[in-house]
Amino acid sequence: MHLLDWNDVADSDWNVCIEQALLNGADRRRLENSHSGKNVGLVFFNDSLRTRVSMELASSSLGATPVTITPGSGTWGFAWDKSKPMLGPEAEHIQEAVGVLSRYVDLLGVRLFASGTNWDNDMQDTMLKQFAAASTVPVLNLESATRHPCQALADAAVLTRHFSGNTTRKKFVLSWAYHPKALPMAVPHSTLLMAARLGMDVTVARPEGFELDPDVMAKARDSAARNGGSVAESYDLPKSADGAHIVYAKAWGGHARYTDPSAEAEERHRHKDWRVTEGTMAATDKAKFMHCLPVRRGVVVDNEVLDGTDTLHLDQAEFRLHAQKAILNWMWDQAGQIQRPKLDFRP
Amino acid sequence: MHLLDWNDVADSDWNVCIEQALLNGADRRRLENSHSGKNVGLVFFNDSLRTRVSMELASSSLGATPVTITPGSGTWGFAWDKSKPMLGPEAEHIQEAVGVLSRYVDLLGVRLFASGTNWDNDMQDTMLKQFAAASTVPVLNLESATRHPCQALADAAVLTRHFSGNTTRKKFVLSWAYHPKALPMAVPHSTLLMAARLGMDVTVARPEGFELDPDVMAKARDSAARNGGSVAESYDLPKSADGAHIVYAKAWGGHARYTDPSAEAEERHRHKDWRVTEGTMAATDKAKFMHCLPVRRGVVVDNEVLDGTDTLHLDQAEFRLHAQKAILNWMWDQAGQIQRPKLDFRP
Amino acid sequence: MHLLDWNDVADSDWNVCIEQALLNGADRRRLENSHSGKNVGLVFFNDSLRTRVSMELASSSLGATPVTITPGSGTWGFAWDKSKPMLGPEAEHIQEAVGVLSRYVDLLGVRLFASGTNWDNDMQDTMLKQFAAASTVPVLNLESATRHPCQALADAAVLTRHFSGNTTRKKFVLSWAYHPKALPMAVPHSTLLMAARLGMDVTVARPEGFELDPDVMAKARDSAARNGGSVAESYDLPKSADGAHIVYAKAWGGHARYTDPSAEAEERHRHKDWRVTEGTMAATDKAKFMHCLPVRRGVVVDNEVLDGTDTLHLDQAEFRLHAQKAILNWMWDQAGQIQRPKLDFRP
Repeated sequence: MHLLDWNDVADSDWNVCIEQALLNGADRRRLENSHSGKNVGLVFFNDSLRTRVSMELASSSLGATPVTITPGSGTWGFAWDKSKPMLGPEAEHIQEAVGVLSRYVDLLGVRLFASGTNWDNDMQDTMLKQFAAASTVPVLNLESATRHPCQALADAAVLTRHFSGNTTRKKFVLSWAYHPKALPMAVPHSTLLMAARLGMDVTVARPEGFELDPDVMAKARDSAARNGGSVAESYDLPKSADGAHIVYAKAWGGHARYTDPSAEAEERHRHKDWRVTEGTMAATDKAKFMHCLPVRRGVVVDNEVLDGTDTLHLDQAEFRLHAQKAILNWMWDQAGQIQRPKLDFRP
Repeated sequence: MHLLDWNDVADSDWNVCIEQALLNGADRRRLENSHSGKNVGLVFFNDSLRTRVSMELASSSLGATPVTITPGSGTWGFAWDKSKPMLGPEAEHIQEAVGVLSRYVDLLGVRLFASGTNWDNDMQDTMLKQFAAASTVPVLNLESATRHPCQALADAAVLTRHFSGNTTRKKFVLSWAYHPKALPMAVPHSTLLMAARLGMDVTVARPEGFELDPDVMAKARDSAARNGGSVAESYDLPKSADGAHIVYAKAWGGHARYTDPSAEAEERHRHKDWRVTEGTMAATDKAKFMHCLPVRRGVVVDNEVLDGTDTLHLDQAEFRLHAQKAILNWMWDQAGQIQRPKLDFRP
Repeated sequence: MHLLDWNDVADSDWNVCIEQALLNGADRRRLENSHSGKNVGLVFFNDSLRTRVSMELASSSLGATPVTITPGSGTWGFAWDKSKPMLGPEAEHIQEAVGVLSRYVDLLGVRLFASGTNWDNDMQDTMLKQFAAASTVPVLNLESATRHPCQALADAAVLTRHFSGNTTRKKFVLSWAYHPKALPMAVPHSTLLMAARLGMDVTVARPEGFELDPDVMAKARDSAARNGGSVAESYDLPKSADGAHIVYAKAWGGHARYTDPSAEAEERHRHKDWRVTEGTMAATDKAKFMHCLPVRRGVVVDNEVLDGTDTLHLDQAEFRLHAQKAILNWMWDQAGQIQRPKLDFRP
């Protein structure tokens, strides 16, 4: 019922969603008002630009009514633990908050970043799963601790379009980039899994100490193998860029931030040269630059690259809209008629 | 024109609204687009989850466009006093703010909690009345210092449904509960008046020093008497629960918080045992647990009760949506065509 | 393509917009759903009441879907400089933020007040122009450092209606008023240019040291001359009010705030008597009082004036809605079909 992770979804459905995203991109009024009368709740525990705007507009375009909830701003924070009496600042438990919203809407989207305090829970998306378990309507992950399925589908559609459907064995470099903060891993994980599923030859270029979740690496290797591609790792971005068709930059923090944040920061700050420059791009096979945005100019990528013509970052952002329409439509098709509590009494 | 307090509304209208709420609950698309072209302004001086979401969705479902205003967040705060030059941080007087919004919308909803500084003004809903007086369109109370009519109608519909219309003489316990904060009294007041109007045998169970407004108590007694029920008070929750059909828990602060907040807090903290437990419910006649939400687990009610099957709290929340559609529809029917300033000039 | 300043727009279009605003005011459902399927992005760098509410409702009335973005609240702040690596708190550059939003919406409204740090840049609306340059869809100025075209059109329509179309040579006093803060100059500039364009005899009444931008003064004098009116300045409000048909009050800070804020404040505080009173109005030719709101009672204008019948301030606010519908409709007519990136690939 939920879409928390594309890994839970069959290839056939994944492919249908890519195709639908492309059709939506080719005709912005496609599916217009196809779901009128439905409501969509969007719960943002973390900031957003693209995601909120594109989800509100995707919902509206389908004829559904979106309503955005920002815990802590206009509403109170939520408690997540049932084992302790709620004597803190949180006025409501997530169980009731989600239970109530489920009664109002036909789908809940939720953005819920990594706690940053417990690696295992974050990699298991424990909080997202608790949220989903409390919901009686389909839940869509709008970026969790470890996955960003909306971005993944948008990127898959952009790549499919860019390569006219022939993504297999195209060389895709997922390059770590420096960033002043230890960013979470949802995007690199989802990007890796997405590119592997498209059968690309993926290289994860990153400094030592900035490995992705081993479980995600293993899943990506399996997926690439099944789809005719491969997954490699490298500590050398310039070398990885050689012959690349895509350079996808993304900053993320080291695993060590969970146990020793200052050591992680010190280590990270040693890699300020991990930045995509004109030089990086020159070594490629006329590669396109990709980034999920927001991106820091002069830190993750140089102005010359971003302001040039060999970029897909704005297309990626645009396809969030088209991809999310495809996802909403697909989820509601899957869910069929939402089962609501029967009301037998007639006055 | 306004709906500030159900006490201002005839029984016939109150009953129509209950019936309409039930019909809306039975068919979620009832009244869909029946008020297209209308606009609804929702002004939240205080946090909200259910109320904002359900008001936005109720408005949209009727075809109206909701717009939410949060004074102090995205807009400035408002001054309420005309007797002093406005040299403080507030950039606009409530007179203009409401006057302007009245020109844009066909109904204004407003949430405006107790000041907590002046008991008499709070019990008279002085600020709400000032807001309403500045409006040229109908004003709907979304919880004021002393009333919460939307919750009351939702609860009345849920009770009517639960008892298949036969609420008379059913035993309804409104139980005070401990809470770390001195909460306002809008919900207990509205709940008491609502249950009395349904002809239930109501017991207000509460510690000494936590009495409801005497005027509300008197009105409730009158209403109960007219409708075949009764109102009693008790300092003993377990005893009150004996044979109850409904246990409605709610925390509220003592009257003393207006004059001596620390004494009130000290007194309140002495009653941490006023919590609805499985033991409380065991003494009842298979009572259902009710709460308006948000509720603090382990403080107001135990997990075992809330996670059990004998609860109506999510139905209450759901019926906010159905009840508010009924209210909007009824208020606009009452208001007839909104009278707007005539524009005679034609270019 | 953009509407940043009415000075960039031909008289014929300006007049069409006034006429359309009046028609919209006479029939609130005019143009209803004439732009369904379109999206409007509203970016508020500064607080708003009238503007956000009326833009959301204007958009919705036309059938378009509005989405409001508040940088720094629910989304991150934006960087504006490309010359420095983005190592500060801003997570995204305005270039990408606007570039992305352009992909989602058919028009961007933006409120972006004066920096207060650089007079020349503010008077040139440098930031607004940077924002507009990054957009591939029409940009509407919702109040910038130096212009407020939506207010100007609303006011022009109200004046045209009030004088039944005969605004020429009517005496219009734009009166400076005291205010505890050094407010920006967008409204006085736009008001002056608007009244001059209507051919009115405009007097700018203000203390020494509170002159408007000389370039705006010159443009206003030219415009008034072309349209049969005039522009004068005065240090004497009571004298200026003599025989006036309109008294339009507005506070603004002195030029000196850019170089010496405390001197400006000291100078400003010397003019607390610049307040519109019953006495001010008594000297006029039954003048109407105007203000763009928000207004400070007892500081800018007395209660007796604002609560009297000789005011147009609520009509001005109401006409924001009608004017903005006219503007949206006109901008989209101008823009024709929005040119979007062609999507050639069909899956």
